[in-house]
Amino acid sequence: MDQKNHRYCVIMCGGIGSRFWPYSRAALPKQFIDFLGTGRTLLQMSYDRISGIIPKQNILIMTNERYAGLVAEQLPEISRDQILLEPARRNTAPCIAWAAWHIAARDPEASMIVIPSDHVITRENLFVESVLQGFDFVESHNALLTFGIEPTRPETGYGYIQIGERVSENMNKVKTFTEKPDLELAKVFIASGEFFWNSGIFLWRTSTIIEALRKHVSDLDSVFAAAPSSVYTDPAAERAFISEAYPGCVSISIDYSVMEKADNVYVETVSFGWNDLGTWSALYDLSPKNSETNVTQNCNVLAYNSRRNIFAIRGEKLIVVDGLEDYIVADADGVLLICPKAREQKIKNMVNDAKLKFGDKYE
Amino acid sequence: MDQKNHRYCVIMCGGIGSRFWPYSRAALPKQFIDFLGTGRTLLQMSYDRISGIIPKQNILIMTNERYAGLVAEQLPEISRDQILLEPARRNTAPCIAWAAWHIAARDPEASMIVIPSDHVITRENLFVESVLQGFDFVESHNALLTFGIEPTRPETGYGYIQIGERVSENMNKVKTFTEKPDLELAKVFIASGEFFWNSGIFLWRTSTIIEALRKHVSDLDSVFAAAPSSVYTDPAAERAFISEAYPGCVSISIDYSVMEKADNVYVETVSFGWNDLGTWSALYDLSPKNSETNVTQNCNVLAYNSRRNIFAIRGEKLIVVDGLEDYIVADADGVLLICPKAREQKIKNMVNDAKLKFGDKYE
Repeated sequence: MDQKNHRYCVIMCGGIGSRFWPYSRAALPKQFIDFLGTGRTLLQMSYDRISGIIPKQNILIMTNERYAGLVAEQLPEISRDQILLEPARRNTAPCIAWAAWHIAARDPEASMIVIPSDHVITRENLFVESVLQGFDFVESHNALLTFGIEPTRPETGYGYIQIGERVSENMNKVKTFTEKPDLELAKVFIASGEFFWNSGIFLWRTSTIIEALRKHVSDLDSVFAAAPSSVYTDPAAERAFISEAYPGCVSISIDYSVMEKADNVYVETVSFGWNDLGTWSALYDLSPKNSETNVTQNCNVLAYNSRRNIFAIRGEKLIVVDGLEDYIVADADGVLLICPKAREQKIKNMVNDAKLKFGDKYE
Repeated sequence: MDQKNHRYCVIMCGGIGSRFWPYSRAALPKQFIDFLGTGRTLLQMSYDRISGIIPKQNILIMTNERYAGLVAEQLPEISRDQILLEPARRNTAPCIAWAAWHIAARDPEASMIVIPSDHVITRENLFVESVLQGFDFVESHNALLTFGIEPTRPETGYGYIQIGERVSENMNKVKTFTEKPDLELAKVFIASGEFFWNSGIFLWRTSTIIEALRKHVSDLDSVFAAAPSSVYTDPAAERAFISEAYPGCVSISIDYSVMEKADNVYVETVSFGWNDLGTWSALYDLSPKNSETNVTQNCNVLAYNSRRNIFAIRGEKLIVVDGLEDYIVADADGVLLICPKAREQKIKNMVNDAKLKFGDKYE
């Protein structure tokens, strides 16, 4: 069997994107939205990007039960059995563990790449090259590999990876993972040449990650190892098992539970364009501006004395605005948000306040 | 015949209220909106107020052809023949002239009050007393009477009337009509005790206003005097005549063409509560504020660091706002306006810009 047929992709697609509320909603999160106005949603773009490298039948979509319909609708070429539905939100480690056991039951020699569904990637030819190099590496090393993006600015919104010992071209051991730095520290990181943005993209053999989970997150290992491997190849049996077992999983990230603890963690330094599209400001920075430095999504804007705003509307609408600078104006499904970009980190609190005061429909 | 049966009311209802755009639209102007959230529109409130004083069959609604359906729907107790439809916008003098000829043809002894349909009046018992006193006055004097509202603040958004020679209690000759003053001058006006707000409410005998029009606006007189009085009592004939003649009328206000020129102009000084609801700021001032001094119309608002704003939404919506002070936020029928209250006089220009750039549907 061609090595390529042992390669799998896991697209993580269960988030609710509340930092883009109200444009991204619990009922229609960010990854299901055509955020860049290209005609394809972020999920579809993620799928398009990987489906040239990975056999289509080897692509899995991990998402919340609630989004089964959205995934099926947006990716009609994916079969129902390739969509794994989480009955509860449990962060990335349980999701990745389940995917690994599911794949291992089908193909003990499998390797897998884990990618988020809601990031923006440009220079996709470099992405393809990096992914192929990464697979070659993990197939010949007992490695937990992550992508470190070559930083282009002292970004304070990302985590960084410090590279250690060089293994081969673009391949290094990881020295440290860091939290989001302040601006001063970010500048020091950039100047050093040793720090790369933490992309949240992972590659490994399924046997390698299962071994790492066994060693570092035994709680999770005991959940998934409890089922015979035949369960993972029988969709009905798997659904029954997961609906019982998954809600009991510890809610923890793969970064915290495995990557920061294991000693076989490597980073492939890559130089494709990447943006985690984590905030309105990130979207603003990424988007083309008009002559008044405003960014518009799906709306006509008539702006007076207004600069550096981002306007995002679901549904046809004209916005007429006077005297607004550095604001987010977002309107969708019965909610209008007007908020300074500088206070966007408060949006999650606003969502909670709105839910408490006016009900769940505003989530 | 009881004198009361010779009394008529003309409600002027043809404006488009563009200063409240986009909440007030060419397709649904201000007077047809329940602006105060009472369950009755401004037109309905105007009708309710006057229908206790004037026989219902003596109430006429003057409006644009476009609003025939809205008037009929909002005032089902009015017969079709009491709604006079203007085939073109021609300001107040042609509208009042037509109404006067229409009434005079039915009742040569008629007197009439002309009221706008989009003002707010409180202390309605005082309004009723003032109207009755006004009718008594014009029925015994050859007078063009207007109401001067006792000012309660140095308002710069209104025209003022300076009173002259006293005739009887609350009744004076008019000395001058003034344009909107600046704040300094408005303070002087108030301190003098001689200046009253120009209400745009008029009372006279139809014979008195027809005579004044003949003297001061002969162009208009010749239009309406050209038809035999039988035309004004035959709805089909009147419609045919008006559709031919009305568009040729000079477009001019009754204030400028008659009231500022005639020498039999009187003012009744009145003390009911009155607001011409001419601007968003006027609506803001009039409306109850929440604890953050924001005003909301038809919407839930979650406000952070936001004060002295007015939020008006058509259709159920939640507004979440941070860091906005002294703004108008209005959303209706596909348009969202965000504009500082201090620049509200620019809204008319914005409507024009929107029409030019994006089409008539935004009027």
